[in-house]
Amino acid sequence: MSTAEITYIAGGAITSTPGFLAAGVASGLKPAGALDLALIHSPRACVGAAVFTTNLFKAAPVVYDRAAIDRNPAGLHTVVINSGCANACTGEQGLRDAKDTAATAARELGVAPDDVLLMSTGVIGKLLPMDKLLPGVQQAVAQLADTMDAGHAAARAIMTTDTRPKEVAVRVRTPEAEFTISGMVKGAGMIAPNMATLLSLVTTDAVISTAAAHSALSKAVEQSFNRITVDGDMSTNDTLLLLANGTVVMPAIESDASPLYQPFLEGLCWITRHLAQAVVRDGEGATRFMEITVRGARNEAEAKQVAMSVARSPLVKTAIYGQDANWGRIVCAVGYSGVDLDPERVSVWLGDLHLVRDGAPYEIDEERASVILARDEIDITIDLKSGTAEAVVWTCDLSHEYVDINAHYRT
Amino acid sequence: MSTAEITYIAGGAITSTPGFLAAGVASGLKPAGALDLALIHSPRACVGAAVFTTNLFKAAPVVYDRAAIDRNPAGLHTVVINSGCANACTGEQGLRDAKDTAATAARELGVAPDDVLLMSTGVIGKLLPMDKLLPGVQQAVAQLADTMDAGHAAARAIMTTDTRPKEVAVRVRTPEAEFTISGMVKGAGMIAPNMATLLSLVTTDAVISTAAAHSALSKAVEQSFNRITVDGDMSTNDTLLLLANGTVVMPAIESDASPLYQPFLEGLCWITRHLAQAVVRDGEGATRFMEITVRGARNEAEAKQVAMSVARSPLVKTAIYGQDANWGRIVCAVGYSGVDLDPERVSVWLGDLHLVRDGAPYEIDEERASVILARDEIDITIDLKSGTAEAVVWTCDLSHEYVDINAHYRT
Repeated sequence: MSTAEITYIAGGAITSTPGFLAAGVASGLKPAGALDLALIHSPRACVGAAVFTTNLFKAAPVVYDRAAIDRNPAGLHTVVINSGCANACTGEQGLRDAKDTAATAARELGVAPDDVLLMSTGVIGKLLPMDKLLPGVQQAVAQLADTMDAGHAAARAIMTTDTRPKEVAVRVRTPEAEFTISGMVKGAGMIAPNMATLLSLVTTDAVISTAAAHSALSKAVEQSFNRITVDGDMSTNDTLLLLANGTVVMPAIESDASPLYQPFLEGLCWITRHLAQAVVRDGEGATRFMEITVRGARNEAEAKQVAMSVARSPLVKTAIYGQDANWGRIVCAVGYSGVDLDPERVSVWLGDLHLVRDGAPYEIDEERASVILARDEIDITIDLKSGTAEAVVWTCDLSHEYVDINAHYRT
Repeated sequence: MSTAEITYIAGGAITSTPGFLAAGVASGLKPAGALDLALIHSPRACVGAAVFTTNLFKAAPVVYDRAAIDRNPAGLHTVVINSGCANACTGEQGLRDAKDTAATAARELGVAPDDVLLMSTGVIGKLLPMDKLLPGVQQAVAQLADTMDAGHAAARAIMTTDTRPKEVAVRVRTPEAEFTISGMVKGAGMIAPNMATLLSLVTTDAVISTAAAHSALSKAVEQSFNRITVDGDMSTNDTLLLLANGTVVMPAIESDASPLYQPFLEGLCWITRHLAQAVVRDGEGATRFMEITVRGARNEAEAKQVAMSVARSPLVKTAIYGQDANWGRIVCAVGYSGVDLDPERVSVWLGDLHLVRDGAPYEIDEERASVILARDEIDITIDLKSGTAEAVVWTCDLSHEYVDINAHYRT
């Protein structure tokens, strides 16, 4: 039982967390003067926790960050994030460029290079244009501010094919403490389970240990970013970073047994779930947000596996795009999910319309289906009737625009 | 060492195999008088072997066929194939309809119901319109002929979103025997490894045992239909059937140790590989045929796993559609394939252009890339440099037209 009260902060940004400064500038990595470089800085040293891509091709900033955070898990100050160039598949030069970027930011800010973390997103296989990036870092340092506008600029600067910035903040209140968690995320394509082309930064002023921060971040990712898919691809650069500057006066969260661990986790899950869903809502070419619930499974892992099988199916996604109540494609994806189940017990609902019962068509009311499918948010519920476990995942439809965006991204 | 000579039969059809009759008629399951019912019949009893979908939702004809072929593996005569309705998720009534269809064909042809096999393709969850189908069966029996035109009509009658019929025949010659293998296939979407929305029938006049036929069919499928993907979906109806009427005078192929097993397998692989590639070439909305070769793998299974990961990537497929040499997406898909490999040894070629060497960009000649990408057939080669095993898979690009076709298929 948690007594945490979680309040959404209207118009929040990464700077909603007291003690964090931000800037977003145009360094020339993107054409036409678009914002392409974000800097986030905490004058007070932060505890950090991170989750990285599982792709074997890891971008230079991922390699760099893993080493830096291992060496310096509780003395972090700064994150430099650029769009326009992923610094992936760039070999030794890419790593040198990453180190130079961190060194430049460190020098400008008067911290150590290991206090600076990096994220990059954009085209793979091109070297960072350092002649533009390094002056951009200096410019960003000069513009650091704790305003919401500064946070919004940072959220804009990390966008690639995103159509809008994605940022959110909440206040967590318990009888013992009150703290803030804020986050921003970038990502619209290459989104798949186990982290994707996602760059996300979450800040908090809560007092938390490295171990507890890691534990909470892992749990929050499993309930959020690992439950979404846009196209099933997984990138070389995925990074989710949590920085806690511990400026609040409160009993420290030392481990997952600490009284305030659960309230913190709830707030963090709220943030990561919101950000993950924002990614899907802004999925490349998305016209519909889809929530897929699988219940009656033998365990949660199987529930998730079935739900992801449906969420990944291009045929389900194109049917939703076409506003077609094609439940046959849904049961098809259930049937090839790899989970052992009894097809003759499966029920499927579209919204509250019970399409399939015991594996066969039930209420096929095309008129009601049309009304439901015209909505922006589509709920699909699948009951396997073989247990009590449940899982929810989120995805979007597959539209003409997805093809448009991805056929010509690089050129 | 095989001494088989395999000769392509120009203008071949399922009726190229001596002793097989065919018909394709319009029974009214499809609108506008399109052909929708195929009947293939051998007056002489056939040995049968089959591969079915692994989807847990199995269509009624799949359930029916498995039982019939188990009971009667060497006395088969007839296959009835309809398009326009998949008879899947149709419960007990669907099974009764399947049995009635077989019984009607059997009565008209003077054979037993268990001598008749069935395949269905089309919309899931609708009952077969038996008032149209059964008269169609009678009409097809009346039109049975051993001509190429009859075979071509059968190949047309099984099409759904296919844009063209897919059929092929070869003559296999060895010093000991000469026999024919012919095949036809239907399938364009819902194509994934481990069989997909594929209906395929292969006929031969070779003398072969049930055991040898099963063995050869399994091997041929692994080298053909299990190496293609269009969209990663897998259907409820997939069926590949081999019928051997044994009319040729030749030493029987009793097992995979028989001298003529290898020549037979080579001919069968030729047919199934041709049909599988034809499915990809006619993939829904396909504008490019892609052959993906992975070599230097530790074993063939891993080579195939990496190749399929690339072949399934929507980002790779849209890049090829957009004629974009986006090798970053290729190495990305290699990196998340699940195979343990060293990214810094990976090479990638587009045609003969060496794009990636040791995991980093190498010859990025955009002009040569443009010339290669303008071709109808795109070869991508990936060398993992960690062994000597190799695998080849085939897929197509992902285009606007794929979305068009699948957004409105049912309505």
